[in-house]
Amino acid sequence: MRIKAIISYKGTSFYGFQIQKNEKLRSVQKEFEDVLNKIFHEDIKISASGRTDKGVHALGQVIHFDIAQEMSLYRLRYSLNCLLPKDIHVISLEKVDEEFHSRYLAKSKTYRYIVSLKEPSPFLIDFVYTVKKPLDIDLMKEGMKLFLGEHDFHNFCTNDEDFVRKIYSFDVEEKDGLFVFNIKGNGFRRYMVRMIMGTIIELGLKKIPLKDVEELINTEQMCRVRYKAPAEGLYLVEVDYEGEDYD
Amino acid sequence: MRIKAIISYKGTSFYGFQIQKNEKLRSVQKEFEDVLNKIFHEDIKISASGRTDKGVHALGQVIHFDIAQEMSLYRLRYSLNCLLPKDIHVISLEKVDEEFHSRYLAKSKTYRYIVSLKEPSPFLIDFVYTVKKPLDIDLMKEGMKLFLGEHDFHNFCTNDEDFVRKIYSFDVEEKDGLFVFNIKGNGFRRYMVRMIMGTIIELGLKKIPLKDVEELINTEQMCRVRYKAPAEGLYLVEVDYEGEDYD
Repeated sequence: MRIKAIISYKGTSFYGFQIQKNEKLRSVQKEFEDVLNKIFHEDIKISASGRTDKGVHALGQVIHFDIAQEMSLYRLRYSLNCLLPKDIHVISLEKVDEEFHSRYLAKSKTYRYIVSLKEPSPFLIDFVYTVKKPLDIDLMKEGMKLFLGEHDFHNFCTNDEDFVRKIYSFDVEEKDGLFVFNIKGNGFRRYMVRMIMGTIIELGLKKIPLKDVEELINTEQMCRVRYKAPAEGLYLVEVDYEGEDYD
Repeated sequence: MRIKAIISYKGTSFYGFQIQKNEKLRSVQKEFEDVLNKIFHEDIKISASGRTDKGVHALGQVIHFDIAQEMSLYRLRYSLNCLLPKDIHVISLEKVDEEFHSRYLAKSKTYRYIVSLKEPSPFLIDFVYTVKKPLDIDLMKEGMKLFLGEHDFHNFCTNDEDFVRKIYSFDVEEKDGLFVFNIKGNGFRRYMVRMIMGTIIELGLKKIPLKDVEELINTEQMCRVRYKAPAEGLYLVEVDYEGEDYD
């Protein structure tokens, strides 16, 4: 039977989601598969909605895997959470159709990025990106609007092809000196959220003008953003499987 | 001139406050002294209000040190915070009388202990102790009252002598599934807060009755608490230098 799992993890001590060639480097995939193999005594592989990079967190990553034996999902979740390291947690398990695929059927993803304008705190180092200078948040909001809709994001990723993505929403809430950005789109290429956030932060710091942001989005020329916001502020919030088809 | 500093640190990756014989093991003292030596090009030693153990955090640890040159405290704090690792932060610096001593003149200390009753979260592993079973908080409050006032705490520490301490307050607030305990006393011996909290948690779990807590506090017999609550939930909140003399 095929199982869909929603999991959260603190990315700080992982070399990303994906299993590394050097298996001594911690990855979420390796740790999860090791525990599945311990429970089922067979080699079970997992697939995720997408990779997350070194240091990036997940509040609601979606994965799937197949098990040969029937098993109570309540018991399976309990066993997984007992055996997994404390920086990975299974939020929920669900039996799904054999056709379900965590990556191919994903319709949208929401990412969060947290910027702190507070005095740097030893307790937040893994969780936010601290900016030590004032940010023009109204200007940032102007810039964020430019990303909405469908664009060719060749300047906002490090991939070689397949750059067109649609951004459904991009907003920010301020709470207590923390700026919490949420961006939802039909998909994001490698480093895309961090390169978008890097650009928006540079805009807020007035290192680049609004028209440069517009040009980066709309030009057909290849002039990739060089600055990507650091991993520790980034969270994969959720993956949706309902809604408009991507292709 | 003598400087009093209030500092915070995340204890997770330190082998405690105090410098270790094996200097490769990270300690707050070693990292701080290294930075002072870098700034002043001389060997400056720091003294703290007391040690904190491996994994224990500080929101307001107090230290002092002497510098030969006059220097703007604004600039010194700035330099320290630039050069210190991100898990140590200087909150404030103050020029004090040469008679000031962070340890000998401390009149009281406040510690915090955070217990989570929520679903374990990968994002809280360094910061709270998660208890997976229900706690009888009213019973715990009954137990906490027994600690107030002056007692011989020989059963609540691992030291060989000098057990008499006075507890000024011990309270708990619940917020969102987190129980935040604050305990203030004229001093705490090694592991004392964690052994008190361990006892209070055992009481809340109904593993021991209230009369056992009373007996542990009041008996002259040596029957040390074996269970100490884990370090990750513990914070040194503040050190006060005003008030009643300890001796």
